[in-house]
Amino acid sequence: MYAVEVSDHIMIAHSFRGAVFGPAQALHGATFVVSVAFLAERLDPNGIVVDIGRAHEALKAVLDPLKYQNLDAVPQFKGVNTTTEFLTRHVFDHLAAAARKGELGRDGREIAAIRITVAESPSARAWYEAPLW
Amino acid sequence: MYAVEVSDHIMIAHSFRGAVFGPAQALHGATFVVSVAFLAERLDPNGIVVDIGRAHEALKAVLDPLKYQNLDAVPQFKGVNTTTEFLTRHVFDHLAAAARKGELGRDGREIAAIRITVAESPSARAWYEAPLW
Amino acid sequence: MYAVEVSDHIMIAHSFRGAVFGPAQALHGATFVVSVAFLAERLDPNGIVVDIGRAHEALKAVLDPLKYQNLDAVPQFKGVNTTTEFLTRHVFDHLAAAARKGELGRDGREIAAIRITVAESPSARAWYEAPLW
Amino acid sequence: MYAVEVSDHIMIAHSFRGAVFGPAQALHGATFVVSVAFLAERLDPNGIVVDIGRAHEALKAVLDPLKYQNLDAVPQFKGVNTTTEFLTRHVFDHLAAAARKGELGRDGREIAAIRITVAESPSARAWYEAPLW
Amino acid sequence: MYAVEVSDHIMIAHSFRGAVFGPAQALHGATFVVSVAFLAERLDPNGIVVDIGRAHEALKAVLDPLKYQNLDAVPQFKGVNTTTEFLTRHVFDHLAAAARKGELGRDGREIAAIRITVAESPSARAWYEAPLW
Amino acid sequence: MYAVEVSDHIMIAHSFRGAVFGPAQALHGATFVVSVAFLAERLDPNGIVVDIGRAHEALKAVLDPLKYQNLDAVPQFKGVNTTTEFLTRHVFDHLAAAARKGELGRDGREIAAIRITVAESPSARAWYEAPLW
Repeated sequence: MYAVEVSDHIMIAHSFRGAVFGPAQALHGATFVVSVAFLAERLDPNGIVVDIGRAHEALKAVLDPLKYQNLDAVPQFKGVNTTTEFLTRHVFDHLAAAARKGELGRDGREIAAIRITVAESPSARAWYEAPLW
Repeated sequence: MYAVEVSDHIMIAHSFRGAVFGPAQALHGATFVVSVAFLAERLDPNGIVVDIGRAHEALKAVLDPLKYQNLDAVPQFKGVNTTTEFLTRHVFDHLAAAARKGELGRDGREIAAIRITVAESPSARAWYEAPLW
Repeated sequence: MYAVEVSDHIMIAHSFRGAVFGPAQALHGATFVVSVAFLAERLDPNGIVVDIGRAHEALKAVLDPLKYQNLDAVPQFKGVNTTTEFLTRHVFDHLAAAARKGELGRDGREIAAIRITVAESPSARAWYEAPLW
Repeated sequence: MYAVEVSDHIMIAHSFRGAVFGPAQALHGATFVVSVAFLAERLDPNGIVVDIGRAHEALKAVLDPLKYQNLDAVPQFKGVNTTTEFLTRHVFDHLAAAARKGELGRDGREIAAIRITVAESPSARAWYEAPLW
Repeated sequence: MYAVEVSDHIMIAHSFRGAVFGPAQALHGATFVVSVAFLAERLDPNGIVVDIGRAHEALKAVLDPLKYQNLDAVPQFKGVNTTTEFLTRHVFDHLAAAARKGELGRDGREIAAIRITVAESPSARAWYEAPLW
Repeated sequence: MYAVEVSDHIMIAHSFRGAVFGPAQALHGATFVVSVAFLAERLDPNGIVVDIGRAHEALKAVLDPLKYQNLDAVPQFKGVNTTTEFLTRHVFDHLAAAARKGELGRDGREIAAIRITVAESPSARAWYEAPLW
């Protein structure tokens, strides 16, 4: 299996509900370094999984609405803990939809899976990986 | 599959037996950067795999007895080459036991697998990953 | 000149006032990786600038009150833009005071200068360095 | 499953054919940081997957002919886009052959799979992983 | 002294003349990670050295003409070894001119110095630092 | 001022004497990532501070005798705490001598200073910098 992975980052505020979060129940924030890996069984005729420039743009399109936001105030996240794990899935869902529609410049059926990795600090990160089909 | 991963490090001395190790047969040492990833099919109601703080504590509990040790003098490692690969398994076994017993704050059955990564230098590392059930 | 440097991190929310900040005028957040370097002309009789463990504790003592905070709501930062640069100086002032008082375990006169580095993302950071005397 | 991974790097020139590459159709270059991970179900009697020193040598043997080369002028790459993804496979094929022949110092049947990762910049990388048997 | 530093990267081809370069006399290439640090004695009324966004743009303006280029074919570099060290100075000269003209959004006299760092691989980099006045 | 910096690493065992070291008084070990930066006011006619390949060799020549050693058993370190700071100076002294003798391929008088950085973990490092003349 081949993969190509690109990264970007966002700087957001948020808070969590639930005793398990301890001090992170308070309004705080994070720099999230977000990577998306597109996996494919075969390279396309150009010799790529998907174009790295286009992958960067697709990731940026998902992240731009979140940049410099207080996630607690984003309507679609109302009542949700926007944990690092949650964000891996949020980004996955958007990029999976884009990939299925062929927006990465390749027939979506040829992209087998996507993995999203979100690092919140030098010592903690989360990822989500799932097949597209 | 979701994963959450945290890291810590230890600074130990050890030596290896076996011609394959060349100069590493002598008593030397390493800073091992150790990461544990907990994998789960689903997030819990808080929106997490396991709490990152608790994951750090569980990893620290396994690593603390090894910090600043000469592994050649640790009774449980007698006669064993404490290679980077061996240590991935040692840490795995302890954290797998903790996870199965629910010590990560979640029913152990909901944690599908654990991956331990140990980096010994900027250019070499090892990992061990296995399902818990 | 010798230096010894240790790192920790904080995850905070804040907002900025001033058109120059563009979208960062909104409430957002950051993971700040904060390093402190203590500089000295000579090593002490133990062969160190200051003890690395003690340096970690001194840095932690300055950072703990900021962890998981909304800096906009911290009284001492009222009316201040808590920029990356500002935070380098905030941490410097506290650690310079600690060093001058001998709290790093060495006569403060033997510590020549302190440098604080704060990274806000993989592609941006700030630092502040000044002599102590 | 265990893995041991080592890294090296090459600095090469190349160009791509295909409108998808945009400005990268011009003759440009890259520092490629190349990692190889050898995966095995079991450790050998020494407690290793393969010797890290030998793994470094095997990787170096594949990379040396590429170091400081213009890949456009390498006969075996004639008419090929030497993309990051392509190079993961090129390195895989050579190291898979070496592993199957036992050149890593272990019966090739005991090495289950190889993963090659090639980073082209701090924000983009590719990998290829496949079983050996 | 305060500093704020931002980074970007370029992927270029080039060759060197001179026996000292050994195999790097051949046409090869590099990913150069380029950082610029602006140094100032005092923060401006916003609490910054210069705006990080504007610093990124200024660096990008200098690097864009070099991206995906064969530096051997760039007229202004004719007859020059475009070494890592040379590039630190090339970037310095352009950003020093921009800073002196106030293009970083601050009276150039308030920027004391600039440091350019160029990393060519995980194990080699160069920098150039000089006062602006 | 220009600088060129290269890195290598060693994996050693050692112990410290002195209550300040706490648990590090026991025999333990470290992976030390060691960097040397050569500083010069001017580039040579080739456009370099010193050749990066030659800098790597000079650093390797100093580090090779320490690789895979128990520093407590190295005669020249008898009675000395081989702290991270101490090692910055040890490496400095050897490379300063080499540079003064012209062994870096350039008249030693043209190398203004050397800085040695030794990282012992992801969160702690030391450095030593001094002029050569």
